[in-house]
Amino acid sequence: MSARVLIVDDLFPNLKLLEAKLSMEYFGVVAAMSGPEALAICENGLCDIVLLDVMMPGMDGFEVCRRLKTNPATAHLPVVIVTALDEPSDRLRGLDAGADDFLTKPIDDTALFTRVRSLLRLKAVTDELRSRAMASRELGMGDPFALAAAETGQGARILLVEDRPNAADRMATALAQHHTVTIEADPHRALVAATEGGFDLALVSIDLDGSDGLRLCSQLRSLDRTRDMALIMVGETNGMARLTRGLDFGVHDYLLRPVDRNELIARVRTQIRRRRFSETLRGAVQASIELAMTDELTGLHNRRYLDRQLVPLFGEAAAQSLGLACLILDIDRFKSINDSYGHEAGDEVLKAFADRVRQHTRGIDIVARFGGEEVVIVMPGATLVDAQAAGERIRERMESVPFLVQRGAAAITVTVSIGVAIRHAGDTSASDMLKRSDDALYRAKASGRNRVVAEAA
Amino acid sequence: MSARVLIVDDLFPNLKLLEAKLSMEYFGVVAAMSGPEALAICENGLCDIVLLDVMMPGMDGFEVCRRLKTNPATAHLPVVIVTALDEPSDRLRGLDAGADDFLTKPIDDTALFTRVRSLLRLKAVTDELRSRAMASRELGMGDPFALAAAETGQGARILLVEDRPNAADRMATALAQHHTVTIEADPHRALVAATEGGFDLALVSIDLDGSDGLRLCSQLRSLDRTRDMALIMVGETNGMARLTRGLDFGVHDYLLRPVDRNELIARVRTQIRRRRFSETLRGAVQASIELAMTDELTGLHNRRYLDRQLVPLFGEAAAQSLGLACLILDIDRFKSINDSYGHEAGDEVLKAFADRVRQHTRGIDIVARFGGEEVVIVMPGATLVDAQAAGERIRERMESVPFLVQRGAAAITVTVSIGVAIRHAGDTSASDMLKRSDDALYRAKASGRNRVVAEAA
Repeated sequence: MSARVLIVDDLFPNLKLLEAKLSMEYFGVVAAMSGPEALAICENGLCDIVLLDVMMPGMDGFEVCRRLKTNPATAHLPVVIVTALDEPSDRLRGLDAGADDFLTKPIDDTALFTRVRSLLRLKAVTDELRSRAMASRELGMGDPFALAAAETGQGARILLVEDRPNAADRMATALAQHHTVTIEADPHRALVAATEGGFDLALVSIDLDGSDGLRLCSQLRSLDRTRDMALIMVGETNGMARLTRGLDFGVHDYLLRPVDRNELIARVRTQIRRRRFSETLRGAVQASIELAMTDELTGLHNRRYLDRQLVPLFGEAAAQSLGLACLILDIDRFKSINDSYGHEAGDEVLKAFADRVRQHTRGIDIVARFGGEEVVIVMPGATLVDAQAAGERIRERMESVPFLVQRGAAAITVTVSIGVAIRHAGDTSASDMLKRSDDALYRAKASGRNRVVAEAA
Repeated sequence: MSARVLIVDDLFPNLKLLEAKLSMEYFGVVAAMSGPEALAICENGLCDIVLLDVMMPGMDGFEVCRRLKTNPATAHLPVVIVTALDEPSDRLRGLDAGADDFLTKPIDDTALFTRVRSLLRLKAVTDELRSRAMASRELGMGDPFALAAAETGQGARILLVEDRPNAADRMATALAQHHTVTIEADPHRALVAATEGGFDLALVSIDLDGSDGLRLCSQLRSLDRTRDMALIMVGETNGMARLTRGLDFGVHDYLLRPVDRNELIARVRTQIRRRRFSETLRGAVQASIELAMTDELTGLHNRRYLDRQLVPLFGEAAAQSLGLACLILDIDRFKSINDSYGHEAGDEVLKAFADRVRQHTRGIDIVARFGGEEVVIVMPGATLVDAQAAGERIRERMESVPFLVQRGAAAITVTVSIGVAIRHAGDTSASDMLKRSDDALYRAKASGRNRVVAEAA
């Protein structure tokens, strides 16, 4: 993964040394000699990852990190704090500031490169979502970036795979303060539990007795149902080679034994935040796509969706001589509801009407708001008799149970007229069928409303 | 990158050997002993990459590859053909079938793992787009997967970075049949050319005289403006270590000297197809997001977008005491246009009207279709005087140039009435301001139309 690495250090020789090393590995290097300079570079999108010295005059590395991680414009940048300090309390301050990792000088080159590459690979995937979410933000659907920067990383469901009872107990106790923890000593049962879903993060010992925890990690990273989980390994200092291997194939982080309670809490929080950031972006993109096909008031599909889906549905039915039926539903005397109870009550009725229609249609049917108080149902595979029966069930259901509006203050009896038609062999497009449904609806209205009328034979 | 590798081989010992090797590297392994079995596994989404033996009874590896790459459901899966054959013509048959690479037995393990990891990293990024595009396909905006599978990989703009005139000439001639090729001998000038954009693919010699072509590759992969280009290295057989390094940091493929003309053409085609696949997916996702905020007829923003954008705009203006103005435009006697010329002409007028409004507003203004023949303009920072002036320009522009409809057969003079208001200190939300614009519009209509009326002082 080639990328632009920002090195932040107030000492020129340190800067030059790190720059030379990274350049040898074909990374692009950007340098900053103070916190404010680093913040400006990040905010202008000129780097992909930050290597941050702690001891700087003015703004120290912890503060730079904190600012980067709480600013929606930069919260996605991976930050590795690099320092000569190595008190657990310093590591903790870095992690608390939101750092993705903490390396101690003198830097072990392999550890540095492994970590930088692993963080960059994760970022490459998120970046793709990020650019799509930028557009969806314009829809004003909340700001996924602000949400992500404000995420606390608490309240997660964690799967702890550890067969040493004492270690498992200690870790579970530390995490239980902010999360729900499930302990599993057996890797096979852990894999089953993980695929059954619901976990945000797995914490896996790679020194399980008689089995390879790293294998479990690789399985969790490669299965569809678990690959989005956050994943942290727990191992011994003398097992660094295997931990590095894990990072290489996609594990997100690791902890060394004896596991420091606070570091455990901090690294879990960082991974939960990272995962939720991706989920939020994914959700924002997904929601905007769905918005384009949804009627906002009723939550039914909109006419755009109906129009576009009808083309392939009609083509397929025609090609394979399959049934295809269409119902147009129109609420009777809807205007009088608006006039008597007000527009808000009218909207309530429309929503409740839409819900009932949805309850009485199949998953494969298309239900779309056609305009005003009209709803269209398209039933693939249905005959005229099927469609009439479905229409009759809906008609009966509307008439028999009044709609409660104005928080239950009023109960309105609503009836519906329905026109039904099916695809004919001679139809050139779906609009022929729609037209016949509309004619049938007209006759339903003309002959007294509250009835289902099928197209003329 | 951990993932599920499908090994397809009809010989059980071969299968087991490769399975053991991959498993040691923590890949998940799925096995198939025939072509049809392999196709079924791929179609059911049970693997992430395919290692394919050529010589199999029944359906051979070339045919399996061809079927995978032309099926929209599986075209995104990377395929590496593995075989004992090593005639250039065999390599070529594999690449022609759409294979991403071709490895010869006995397999060099490092080459295998490097290539598998590199292909999987690329896939991880595309997968993210793929799942979003799945949803956008439901909008019926064409099928990006079918498009991608049908892509020929021709007509690309290629940047060839090579300082050996003969080699450059030979490659350029081979590629010029299907592509446009630009030759650049100097890596610095090549970088500038690449960032200035427009290239789909760069082909870079890593043995440039006096400079490191691999460095150029790394820069191309890390700069925002070039990282989406496809990238292929050209090197010597004795430079495999550096080529491997390139693959590791994200270069997509390589060619060995002397470059075989047909292999060059085939590998370039594969990379162009891969890149266009990503672009198509990206475009589909982007288009669906934009659809959600666009009025289909006029291309202006829709009311949903306006409503959601007004909230933060209003909040910001209120917090910082900035100006904010709002104009509501309504085409005069629009119904009579529909009645006299028909609905299609009415729609033409609406579109042309929207275009003119857009031409006479600033980039920071929001222009949205509010309903029927009404358009709203929101002007951040504007005073009442600014907004009136803008309104007057638009009014004058509509009246003075008639609208041509029905392919120029009719010229209709259209006038517009405009109501203007600004945010007041006492407003609780943007709808107060909208209401005043609407009142002003009412007065513009009542006092004779074709005029701009500001809210009452």
